[in-house]
Amino acid sequence: MPVFDRLIRDVTLATMTGGGAPYGLIEQAAVGITDGRISFAGPGSAVPKDAITPETQVESQPGHLLAPGLIDCHTHLVFAGNRANEFEARLTGVSYADIAKAGGGIKASVAATRAASEDELVALALPRLARLKAGGVTTIEIKSGYGLTLEDELKMLRAAIRLEEETGVTVLTTLLAAHAMPPEYADRADAYVDHICAEIIPAAAELADAVDAYCETIAFSPEQVKRIFAHAIAEGMDVKLHADQLSNLEGGALAAEYGALSADHLEYLSDAGVAAMAEAGTVAVLLPGAFYNLREKTLPPVEKLRAAGVPMAIATDMNPGTSPVADLALMPHMACTLFGLTPEEALAGVTINAARALGIEDDRGSIEEGKAADLCLYPVSHPRDLVYWIGGVKPVKVIKDGEDF
Amino acid sequence: MPVFDRLIRDVTLATMTGGGAPYGLIEQAAVGITDGRISFAGPGSAVPKDAITPETQVESQPGHLLAPGLIDCHTHLVFAGNRANEFEARLTGVSYADIAKAGGGIKASVAATRAASEDELVALALPRLARLKAGGVTTIEIKSGYGLTLEDELKMLRAAIRLEEETGVTVLTTLLAAHAMPPEYADRADAYVDHICAEIIPAAAELADAVDAYCETIAFSPEQVKRIFAHAIAEGMDVKLHADQLSNLEGGALAAEYGALSADHLEYLSDAGVAAMAEAGTVAVLLPGAFYNLREKTLPPVEKLRAAGVPMAIATDMNPGTSPVADLALMPHMACTLFGLTPEEALAGVTINAARALGIEDDRGSIEEGKAADLCLYPVSHPRDLVYWIGGVKPVKVIKDGEDF
Ligand SMILES: [Zn+2]
Ligand SMILES: [Zn+2]
Repeated sequence: MPVFDRLIRDVTLATMTGGGAPYGLIEQAAVGITDGRISFAGPGSAVPKDAITPETQVESQPGHLLAPGLIDCHTHLVFAGNRANEFEARLTGVSYADIAKAGGGIKASVAATRAASEDELVALALPRLARLKAGGVTTIEIKSGYGLTLEDELKMLRAAIRLEEETGVTVLTTLLAAHAMPPEYADRADAYVDHICAEIIPAAAELADAVDAYCETIAFSPEQVKRIFAHAIAEGMDVKLHADQLSNLEGGALAAEYGALSADHLEYLSDAGVAAMAEAGTVAVLLPGAFYNLREKTLPPVEKLRAAGVPMAIATDMNPGTSPVADLALMPHMACTLFGLTPEEALAGVTINAARALGIEDDRGSIEEGKAADLCLYPVSHPRDLVYWIGGVKPVKVIKDGEDF
Repeated sequence: MPVFDRLIRDVTLATMTGGGAPYGLIEQAAVGITDGRISFAGPGSAVPKDAITPETQVESQPGHLLAPGLIDCHTHLVFAGNRANEFEARLTGVSYADIAKAGGGIKASVAATRAASEDELVALALPRLARLKAGGVTTIEIKSGYGLTLEDELKMLRAAIRLEEETGVTVLTTLLAAHAMPPEYADRADAYVDHICAEIIPAAAELADAVDAYCETIAFSPEQVKRIFAHAIAEGMDVKLHADQLSNLEGGALAAEYGALSADHLEYLSDAGVAAMAEAGTVAVLLPGAFYNLREKTLPPVEKLRAAGVPMAIATDMNPGTSPVADLALMPHMACTLFGLTPEEALAGVTINAARALGIEDDRGSIEEGKAADLCLYPVSHPRDLVYWIGGVKPVKVIKDGEDF
């Protein structure tokens, strides 16, 4: 047993390790930290006495809950421009079609993001990430997808990487060049896909951890997604998919076929898609913020995903059009209320299953010996309290890699 | 023109005064404060030079929006006990009936609140109010209604009053003894109403600003409410009503008939109720948190209220059963997305119309000369941004009666 740099004791632990007690709950527990990693997690009575030295920083936190740092596994955090005007226009009776005709929608975000410098993108994203961080987020995925040119997609990825340096939040980056059709390629979708495969993916391979695409009748076809995935995999990159959000294109099954880390949205996921995802171990990332904001009616098949053993993650989908939300702690309540998840599933959705959706479950997402010490301390007695409050509960302390954050 | 103690300049103002520009918007504006009150609000170019002295504290806040402090005009903030267990039970398939049979529901809150001391109630409510305050709330209404005995209702009201002393947030108190039937009076509803009228209202007259009741098939009948209102008015107290939430008992019209400040919930409000409220000047308090949390389907008649000119307010309805939310800034987005309010109506709902619902519109709720200087400073360029974000925007500074808060 290595010596502890830090010991947090007299807490309730929601380890989220799965298998044992609900939430991996341990009462009167302690966590030992050594070199930024968890070196002990268990009942206080089992703490090895010789791991505590006079140098160990010991904190007693009775009445508090210690849970894994939150992981937001699907965001479009980096963008320029403001689309609150569209939100207001819609509520005063202007149609989507008229907003699009006036240059609104994703086109507005693309134009503003192209016009912004990398520095500007970082400056605009920082307050959004600061709010997520204050809510307990210690790891975040950030997608490109508002550049839609080689240069602008790389600019977005570099901005995302700089956000990790600026904030200390672990950032995983995803290339989403196949987010929408750039105006230069209007009516030449296959030529844009060729460009993505031949130019953008190879250039982004050093900057992005994964490649994503928007598979939808209004975006990219399954055949186009397959070409993109094949090139991404050839570059050694992970893949994931915006799938079956507005219609059933069998995106879930497509993602599973390519061994995707996750398929996201999934309101129209078919039974075959559920089975394929279960078989492949592809995580279902549910995005209740977009569902709520768009006033969708068709629910993702949560009971079938549960029955098939597909891990379910939850994310903000933070984006300026369909899910302007910079607080991950709002999403578990929405996932329960709108989608019918249990509070335990919802909390797993923003911790261990979000880690699975990013392929980092060996390193983060639960309180287990050997994992990074990313922790949130909450003034509650039970983890269900974190989900019960609309808007969640703010952590009183966040610890990142063993240090106060 | 009195001399300014404080001048905030180079801001955009959302005065919420109504009548003129949307949001009462003034660009490149300034607010002068004297003795805790607004002594100037207008374009920076119109600031009277002789009102600024060497003692005036001058702050320039370019790129920021100054709006009225938020007012939460319907809350059940004071209570003991934790009902997260019920929330979890429901999501794991336990029925409401079985929860009630096991002593859950409002009975659980009543039992815990009766068992708590006044000090304990204050201590339990403080973190909830601290979160509301951090979100920009400068005035709050707090109801009793989990005591249901003379002694316990007064205890709740005293706790609410102490919360003003502890936090500086202006607290208006409401007696809601007619919230549910106390177990001692099971099947003797009229006897409990007699007790409310003869004993509780007179004893609470010094502590409560208003009297409220829950008019519903599962609670108190219109005839019982009328008796309660008559006694409250005889004591010189304002009245208000939980009306037409789950069924149409013509609660809106009843509230209007008694000149109520507000009728609240209103999902089943009739056309006659709309007309009566418009005629009486009774405010419609909409509670989207409870609507969302209960997954209700029947919407309050927002278009009819708008057409009739009934002022619409929005509140958290913060309570442990149907609306556990301690963040008023979440509600405007929900009011737009779920009920179809415009962003301007939603912001008026948590400022000037919330003040109207509490009868304090001459003193608070908008940025106007003579009113208390309760202000929120936000890092946004336009007030619609405050509503557009799911979860709202946190103020970077809150000013209460002219002082940093
Ligand atoms: Zn997305
Ligand atoms: Zn209420």
